[in-house]
This record gives sequence, structure tokens and C-alpha cells, in this order.
Amino acid sequence: MNWKTAAAQKTVDTIRVLSAEAVERAQSGHPGMPMGAADFALVLWAGHLRFDPADPNWPNRDRFILSSGHGSMLLYSLLHLFGFPLTLEDIKSFRQWGSRTPGHPEHGITPGVETTTGPLGQGFANGVGMALAQKLIAARVNTDKFPILDHRVYAIVSDGDIMEGVTAEAASLAGHLGLGNLIYLYDDNDITIEGDRNLAFSDDTRRRFEALHWQVLPADGHDRDAVDAALRAARAETGRPSLIMCKTRIGFGCPHKCGAADVHGAPLGADELKATRAGLCWNYPEFFIPAEAYDFCREAARDKIAAAAAWRQTMADFRRQEPERAKLFNALVNGELPADLEERALAAVDQKPVATRKASGQILQALSPAIPALFGGSADLHPSTNTLIKKQPLIGPGRFEGRNLHFGIREHAMAGMANGMALSGLIPYVGTFMVFSDYMRPSVRLAALMKLRVIYVFTHDSIFVGEDGPTHQPVEHVAALRLIPNLHLFRPADGPETAIAWTAALRRLHGPTALALTRQTVPALDRARYAPADGARRGGYVLGGADEPGIILMASGSELPIAAAAFEELEKRGVKARLISMPCLELFDEQDEAYRRSVLPPACRRRVAIEAGRSTSWHKYTGLDGLILGLDRFGASAPASVLAREFGFYPEAALAAIGRAYPEFAP
Amino acid sequence: MNWKTAAAQKTVDTIRVLSAEAVERAQSGHPGMPMGAADFALVLWAGHLRFDPADPNWPNRDRFILSSGHGSMLLYSLLHLFGFPLTLEDIKSFRQWGSRTPGHPEHGITPGVETTTGPLGQGFANGVGMALAQKLIAARVNTDKFPILDHRVYAIVSDGDIMEGVTAEAASLAGHLGLGNLIYLYDDNDITIEGDRNLAFSDDTRRRFEALHWQVLPADGHDRDAVDAALRAARAETGRPSLIMCKTRIGFGCPHKCGAADVHGAPLGADELKATRAGLCWNYPEFFIPAEAYDFCREAARDKIAAAAAWRQTMADFRRQEPERAKLFNALVNGELPADLEERALAAVDQKPVATRKASGQILQALSPAIPALFGGSADLHPSTNTLIKKQPLIGPGRFEGRNLHFGIREHAMAGMANGMALSGLIPYVGTFMVFSDYMRPSVRLAALMKLRVIYVFTHDSIFVGEDGPTHQPVEHVAALRLIPNLHLFRPADGPETAIAWTAALRRLHGPTALALTRQTVPALDRARYAPADGARRGGYVLGGADEPGIILMASGSELPIAAAAFEELEKRGVKARLISMPCLELFDEQDEAYRRSVLPPACRRRVAIEAGRSTSWHKYTGLDGLILGLDRFGASAPASVLAREFGFYPEAALAAIGRAYPEFAP
Repeated sequence: MNWKTAAAQKTVDTIRVLSAEAVERAQSGHPGMPMGAADFALVLWAGHLRFDPADPNWPNRDRFILSSGHGSMLLYSLLHLFGFPLTLEDIKSFRQWGSRTPGHPEHGITPGVETTTGPLGQGFANGVGMALAQKLIAARVNTDKFPILDHRVYAIVSDGDIMEGVTAEAASLAGHLGLGNLIYLYDDNDITIEGDRNLAFSDDTRRRFEALHWQVLPADGHDRDAVDAALRAARAETGRPSLIMCKTRIGFGCPHKCGAADVHGAPLGADELKATRAGLCWNYPEFFIPAEAYDFCREAARDKIAAAAAWRQTMADFRRQEPERAKLFNALVNGELPADLEERALAAVDQKPVATRKASGQILQALSPAIPALFGGSADLHPSTNTLIKKQPLIGPGRFEGRNLHFGIREHAMAGMANGMALSGLIPYVGTFMVFSDYMRPSVRLAALMKLRVIYVFTHDSIFVGEDGPTHQPVEHVAALRLIPNLHLFRPADGPETAIAWTAALRRLHGPTALALTRQTVPALDRARYAPADGARRGGYVLGGADEPGIILMASGSELPIAAAAFEELEKRGVKARLISMPCLELFDEQDEAYRRSVLPPACRRRVAIEAGRSTSWHKYTGLDGLILGLDRFGASAPASVLAREFGFYPEAALAAIGRAYPEFAP
Repeated sequence: MNWKTAAAQKTVDTIRVLSAEAVERAQSGHPGMPMGAADFALVLWAGHLRFDPADPNWPNRDRFILSSGHGSMLLYSLLHLFGFPLTLEDIKSFRQWGSRTPGHPEHGITPGVETTTGPLGQGFANGVGMALAQKLIAARVNTDKFPILDHRVYAIVSDGDIMEGVTAEAASLAGHLGLGNLIYLYDDNDITIEGDRNLAFSDDTRRRFEALHWQVLPADGHDRDAVDAALRAARAETGRPSLIMCKTRIGFGCPHKCGAADVHGAPLGADELKATRAGLCWNYPEFFIPAEAYDFCREAARDKIAAAAAWRQTMADFRRQEPERAKLFNALVNGELPADLEERALAAVDQKPVATRKASGQILQALSPAIPALFGGSADLHPSTNTLIKKQPLIGPGRFEGRNLHFGIREHAMAGMANGMALSGLIPYVGTFMVFSDYMRPSVRLAALMKLRVIYVFTHDSIFVGEDGPTHQPVEHVAALRLIPNLHLFRPADGPETAIAWTAALRRLHGPTALALTRQTVPALDRARYAPADGARRGGYVLGGADEPGIILMASGSELPIAAAAFEELEKRGVKARLISMPCLELFDEQDEAYRRSVLPPACRRRVAIEAGRSTSWHKYTGLDGLILGLDRFGASAPASVLAREFGFYPEAALAAIGRAYPEFAP
């Protein structure tokens, strides 16, 4: 393509002015990035990125991620210009309630937005997950004749992305795996919010990424031919990811604020906007898009649309000639589940004492053969988290036939990559110790916000980690995860509840699930005496006891046996008690009121909750007259049995506390 | 020193066997790392590290951090051998309840343990903060004649540290700042828990750290002369941090398990331990330490002890000849506060509408001249977080006279470094948006566990961030921070409460405090009508209303004015109501029962809490009969005023909800 034409220039300037105008109208936003990145972004979109504006979910489209999500107007401008279903009216309502143009790009709100970005580094890691997903699917379905999935993943990343730790982790793993389908453009503009980037940063970024086995290509980000050449070189490199370092000036086009920090995150202001328009000889009305710009983009899109149409034809042939592979393709990109999921899961566990992390591992072995889309691994802890799919090869550099990925000691990138894998249709599960859920929390939050089916296998879920001590003993983490909206946390009490938890996580299409699993063996609940684990599907359920209880005992996970023992003793004493298992509070809260009242009768205010962690989660159910046996301090290094004794997590201690709180139930 | 002597070898083998025996006795722990690192660790401790075993807190000691904290027996062995107050009996109770030898090193439990480690990457970042603290203090107190503080910071780091993102951030900033007083030894042993490191990792670590402007020195970690030479080279380099890459074999000394993953995190087992002892010709009883080992270490310690004594003499001279500097030194290393702290803080704010982040900035300007130990900065957001100390120079490469550090877009390293600064006596404050508190949570937790005085300035503390949308709007973060044991979270409602929050944070010697501050302007509370802000010192306090209320309204931060308006309307209607401000729930919970009951009379069950965030924090106070106006979903991109309307955060909506919940209070 000829990048020096007046039409190309007009298109770039359209992006600049439109972005500045939208920010000005909203009186909030980030004009500097879209203006600075417009040149190289247009080269990418017009010259290289593969998409079909009429079918934003075309499976073989190239993925584009704006990791520097604050520059959202760049993306909205491009989507509009290239004919995606995003109108000028949408752009005029930038950052307004209910609009399709929120302040940062949100997946699910705007067609063509591949992932929700803004928190820095997340888009970088998402893209690594997407590139891996492409490799995993391609390794299973592509044939020489039918290269069904051969798209690339592109992103624009900023100084913020480059500095964040999650980026370092994801970049290291991308380089290790040799993800040649990954091409990132770095908007290398020397400016951050506090001023010149060199106030805080002097990395030799080229050398750093080369040390991680990336191809690094410097380019003048305003020289469209140079960017085009770099993109060609990046596409030619299939064995390594590429980083194109686009040297740019932030706010390019602003006569006074260009290259300065204050163009980053605030409207230009009427005067500077006027001067910008004058400098660009922009004599159009506000929010006007010249015909040349539309024409340029539509012309560029023509080949892309034709390619998408050709792919659909190829896909039709593929379905006919390779029906098995086509079926597998569907199973992979749609994350399909077997009809007998629950039976398989429940058959994998039995009613014996077990550490729920072990039960989880058994369930994983039983389910994985029936779920081709299930891929995962751990942050270097699989012997402890039981997250390895046995008899399946490893994923490694250039080897994508396996199911198991060694994420390395990179929890944050693991969770960020999982989001990218889920956005590609796969069902990722990722494991680490519960206490390290903190390391990945920003990505967990985005999975919840994006409504992604990601499964977190968090083992070692309480102080009963034991000797490793307080640095490794979660106390607040279970409660803290419950706070993330749209995340379900399951803390199963035995093998069958673990099976229900896994199936609930898999069947939950619009949100992530965290499994909180024990390190230690937990006693088997006597399911002959108590209700079946099936009730766990509703988050909380009655295990047994009186219809009109005088006292209710509830617990989750490894503390349920303690509650059960106390309950049995109370029954022996003739107390009308009830025992409730509460493996998933969020799911219980989603049940209708009648069900919730049937489990927790409002008339009964003597309510006891037992959980070896912060008590905060439970006040909602126990109220001012209730009793919570929790742990509101850090743990300590000692054998688990000693900790149980010292912190009062055993039936006699529970009964004593109940007796103190409710003397009428004392022996 | 001659590293080839039989005594040196005996000492190294003592560390190996003692570590393996302690793990074996505890039947849990990590023998591989201490055995592999014993050679180079001994060279560091005997030949280079400056300390005084009788005075573990000697201010000018070199700091030693075991960032790979799982290898705690290495550190305990060294502390014991070199004469720190840690007995063989202590070591025999490794990992037991109440012992001084917990599973991972814990600062405050064991003399000589400089920081609590275990969660990977944290020690790495702590050390960068310690090295910075040394530079900051030295720049203020050292003279040519009196180089009072010239110690170095050493750490042993592992593959896990090297892979973690927080390390990448901290290493980048250390290289940028040119911290030549930082020397890290990398236990480069090719093994991680899941197996060979190259399963997940193929960085060119040397090149990567050179790109961050570190001196990188490779050495055979079992060649003690080579390690000694590398340490000399590292000490000779004063303008760059150094990474000594010590190539080692994990579990060195084990005949069968050496070099394998299963020696990492489990006891050797009786057979392998026996074989190890045989291989090392170790014919001593269990837990026996040969006299040669004690002698070797005591001999090595002699010069160190003499140096410490000489320093004390120098310090005495310094106090006499440089009394002002000596006073400053005390203020810095003890984090001293002025007596009139509260007056200064309160004088900085007035009773006008203000964004609490702005009030915080005013308070910072007023307090910082009186608190020499107060240093801080933000993760590239100071124009928004108001965390810059004006009229003070910046901290930068080779420039340590300033007060303000640009941490860059590195939230996690910022918090990890703050821990190191606090461990050095300084009072660090660090700022970012509340939503990004998730990025630094592992370090916040460790500050709380270590009882460090760190101040987090978290601005933009609710959905009222507005247009930036749900990625930037905290919903669960305030509640989630409240869950971390020993962390106080203050969410002040106006200028005076912000002043109280700052002073409470500064006066809190044994734990961190998070300030949750608004982006938006909040109305000024009519303090003539209501109680003074002083009550905020108790976490929650009565602002006004009936002695025997029929309904209680409570709120924090920007929602207090909504509660106040609703309260005033209820009073107008003749309802006996009470208004409570609850800026710090943790502090309120720490008050005695009589006070808590005086604020929240048990007889009143009509309790309404208002906070624009997850409601979970409040059930404890409102109970089953209460009402919480919270936000249990993600926010949305729109102007703050629109969000207030849509989500019902305005007085009329609150009154309507109260009327629905308690019809007797409807108009």
C-alpha cells in the first residue's frame, strides 16, 4: 500500500481529530495516545490486520488488543472507520451511561473489542494467552490442506505495560514458547503521567526483550512505510514473538501539548483543540469524517472481507472432508462439555476421607478426556495442586499437542493468559496455593468483569497448610475472593462436593469460579445419614436436622466435619439443631428467597458459622445474635493438628463456644 | 580467607547436614536449597557480610535477605553458627508452634531475620527498598569524616524470585537508580518444583539484567574462591546493583536426590539422609555441630564484631561533633514524629467542600517538613493522588537528597520496596488508585504480617471515579483491604477526618494503614452541628442525634453526607435517629465493648449503613434486621453524578430504601 497518499494522511488525521473531539465532548479521557499512535495503528489495521467488520467474531480473525486501554478512542475510531457496527452517534456518547463507547474498552459492550483493558499489563498477558490458544487449536485441527486457524495476535502496548510485572512474566513465557504468531507494537513515546519516562525508567527495552527471545524491531512510529516494513518482518518471523518499538510523540498533531505529559489524560481544551484543527488544516465541522477517510478504510477492508469469505468456503469444505476435525474444532472454540459431565465427575470420587485437592485431581483425570477444550496448569506447583492431566504431553517451545502448560512461577501472567485462552473459546484452569491468589487478583477481577469461564484451582486453602507458616496460610483470601463481583468461590467439604464444584464451574458460561481446596485429608461426610452432595449445586443446602431448628450450624470445606460433630452432639443432647453445608455463598445468594428461607428459617436466630478464615463473609447469615468461629488473625508455623487445637477448630471447642454464646445449649 | 581449608568444608557440610536433619525431624520443609546454597552463603557470611551477632539491630549492619524463604534452615544454620541468639534447641523445634524457627523466616520472631520471606519476589523488592533507604539516610547524615551509614544489602534469590513480576519491576527501578549498594546472589540451580527449570523458562538472565543496568557476574556456586572473587567485584562496583549468578546443584551432598526436583520441598527420608551423612563422612550424632565449624565462624566474626565496636566509637564522636546530623539520624532511623502532629495536620485542612485526595495532599505538605523520615511517591499517578511533596527535589539516579520517588508504573515493587524502607526505620507512603491496590496486595499483606508502618494513599476510592469505567472503579477493594489482618483502612468523610486518618497512620507503629480517598469533591460536614472529627481516632463515633435512637444511620467517606442528609430529614419528621461516622472499622472493633455499645446501642436493630462498595463489611454492624445501601456489582463508565443517580447514592434514594425496609419511618 502507498502510505504517503493524501487519503492515508487524511485518515490518520481523522483518527486524531475524532479522538480529541470525543474526549473534549466528554470532558474526560485520554487524547494523547490515540493522536500519537494513529500512524502506526492505521498501518496495522489497513495493511496487516485480518478481520471482517460484518462478522466481528469470525474465528480466524486476527486479534487486536489495545493493552493501553486508556487510548480507547483510537480503537473506537478504527472500528467505526473500518465499518464495524459502531456509529458516529456511539462515538459522540463516549464515556456516557449505557453507551457502547465506555472510557476503557470493554469486551462484550463493543463489537470488535477483543478484551477489556485499562489496568496495565493485562492486555499484554491476554494476548499471550490468545496466541497460545491459537497454537493449541491449530495443532489439533489444521491440516496442510485446511489451515483453518492461522491468525495472529496483535497488540498496542504502552510504557505502562512495559513496566508492569505481569508483562515481564508473560513476555518471558511467550518467548520461551516461541509464539511467532504474536506481534506487539510498543507506543514508545518517552512520556508517562508524572512526566518524562526517564524519571523512573531507563531499561534497554530492546536488549531486555531479546534476552527473552523476542524479535525486536525499532521503527519511527510516524513513518508509515517503516512501520509497514517492520510489520512484514514481524509476520515473516514464525518462531519468535515480535516487538515493534514504534518511536512516537504523544499527542502528535497538537501544536503546543505534543510530547508533553499533560496531553495524556485530560481534554486538550478548546484553544488547543482549535489550534490542532488549524495545524492539520481541518476545516470540517465537529465530528465530521471526510469521505476520503471512509473510502481509504473501506478500500483497505475489501481484501480482508474477501479473505473472510474465502475462509468460510474453506471451512465448509473442511466440515465435509474432515468431519471429525471439524467436530473437534467446534468443541475447542466453543468449549463444549459432555452431556454426562456430572456422572463422570461424581464417579471419580468416593465417600472416603480425602484431601479435596486430591479429589480435584481425580476429577480432572476423569473429565479431561471428555473435554477437549480443557487446558491448564499451575504456577510451578502441580505436584501439590494436582493440576496435571496425566498421560497427556506437555506444552512446550514449538510443541502444542499437549494439554499441560508449565506456567512457571508467574501467577499473574498465568491468570492473565487464562483470560486470553477463555476469550478464544477454551476452558482454562489454573492452579496455585490459595495464598498466592493475591498475586493474580487483577486478572481474576477482569475475568469476572468479562464474564469469562476460567477455573482457578486454589489449594492449601486455610491455616491447615501447617508448618509453612503465616506467609503460606490463607486467612483472608477466601473471603476476599468472595468480594469480587461475578466470581463464584466453591469450598467443597468432601469428594462429592468437589465433583459438584468442578461441574458447576464448567457449566458456568458467564463467569469464573475459584475452587478452594484443602491440603489436608478431610473426613468423609456420612452421606447415608446426611443429604446428598447434589444440594451443593444451590450453593448452600440442608444436610440434616430439625424442621424448626432452635440452632443452625453452618460451615464450608474442611470445617464442615467439625460442625457435623457438634451438630451430632447437640442432637444427642436433645437440641433441635440443623446442619447446613455452604460451599458457595454467591450461588446460595442467587437462589430465590423461598429456597434461602427454607435453608435458613428467619425465625431461627441462633446461627453458628464455622470457617477457618476471616469471619466477615458470615455475618450476613448469622446476624447480631449469631456466632462465628473464624480466624481473624494471621496463622502460625506448626503442624496442622496443633493449629487446630490452638485456634479452636475441633468439635469440643465449637461446642464450648456454643455453650458460652447460648447457655441453653450447654450440656 | 582460605576457602579450601578443612574447617571451611566442615562448616559448609554442617549447614547441609543440620538443615537436612531439622527438616527430617519436622517431617516437613525444604532441604534442597540450604544444601545447594551452603557454599556461596558461607562465603558471603564469613567473608563479606558485616554484622554483630550480639547486636542484631546494629544500624550499620549489612542487610541479608533470604528471598527464597523456603530455604529458611540455611538462614537459621548461619545465625546459629555465627553466634546470633538462636540455640540448637531452637533449631530442633524447627516449624513447631511457638518456636523461633518457623517454616519461613519471620521478621520479629527470629533475631537477625531482616524481613519475612516466602512469597516469591518479595524479598527481592524489600532489598531494593532497603538499599534505597540506606542511600537516602546516608545522603543526609554522612560526612567525609563520618560515613555513619555505608552498609550494603545482600540477598539470596532463587528461580522463583527471578520469574516473578514484582522482581522485574524492582530490578528495573534498582538499575535505574544505580543502587550500587545492592548485591544479590542468584541460586541458579536449574530446578523448580515441577522439574527442570527449562520446562517453563529460557530467559537469558544475564542479558536481561544487563539490560536493566545491573552488573552481572557468573560464578560456580560451589567454587568458594570464585564466589569470593565475584563478591569482591560486586563490592567494587558502586554505581550499579550486582547480580552474582551462582551456578549450583540443588541438594548438593545428597548422593541420589542431588540436582532433582524432589529434594526441593520434602524431607530427604531416612535412607537418603543416612547416605548423605555417609557421603560427607559425617560420623557425628544427630544435631551435632563440630567444634571446627563453630571455630571457623567465630574466627570469621571477630573482625565484624571489632568493626561494629569501632562504629559505635565513631557514632559517639559523631554525636558530639555533629549534633544536628546525629539528631537527624535518629529521626530518620526511628521514624520520629513531631509532638504537634495533630495540630499541624488539622491546621492544613478547613471546613470546606474538598476531594479528600486534595485534603490529603495539603496534609502531606504540612506534615512533611516536620517528619524527616517521611518518603514516598506514587506509581506514576502523583498529579492524581496528590502524593508529591512540593518544593522538595526528586530522587533519581545517583541523587538521593530528595523526598519524592517516581516509582514508575510498578505498583507491586512500590509496595515491596516500601516494606524494605519501613524495615530501615523510614516512614514510607505510596500512592496509586484504589483499584490498583490489587496489584500490590501480596506486599500489603506482608507489611501487615510484619507490623510495618507503611501508609498507602489509595485515591479514586469508589465508582465515583466516573467515566474511566469499571476497570478503574473499585467496588470490592475497600472491603477486601479490610480483610487483611492488622491493616487499618481509613475512609475519611471530609478534610478533618482526613487529617485524623493521616495522624493515626503515622502514630501507628505496629501496622500499616490504607487511606481510601475520593477523587470527587465531597460536601463539608457541618461540624458546628455535628461532633468534631476527633472521634475518628476511635474508628467510629456518634456525630449526632438521639440518645436512645429508633434508627441508626452509619456511613464512611463520600457517603457520609448522604447519610447525614437522610438523618436530617428523618429528624425533621420527628424520628429519633442517630448519625454515625465509621471511617475505620478495624479501629472501631479495637475499642472496648462499652464504647462500641455506646456508639451502636444493642437495643437499636434498625441500622442502616451506606457505602458505595461491597456491602459485606457492614453486616457485622447492621445484622439481619439492618439495611445496607452498597454496591454489589461492577460499576459503569459515566459521569459520577449519573452513577450516583443510577446506583441510588443520594439522600432521596436512601430515604426511599429506609421507608421500604422500615415502613414506620416512611413519610
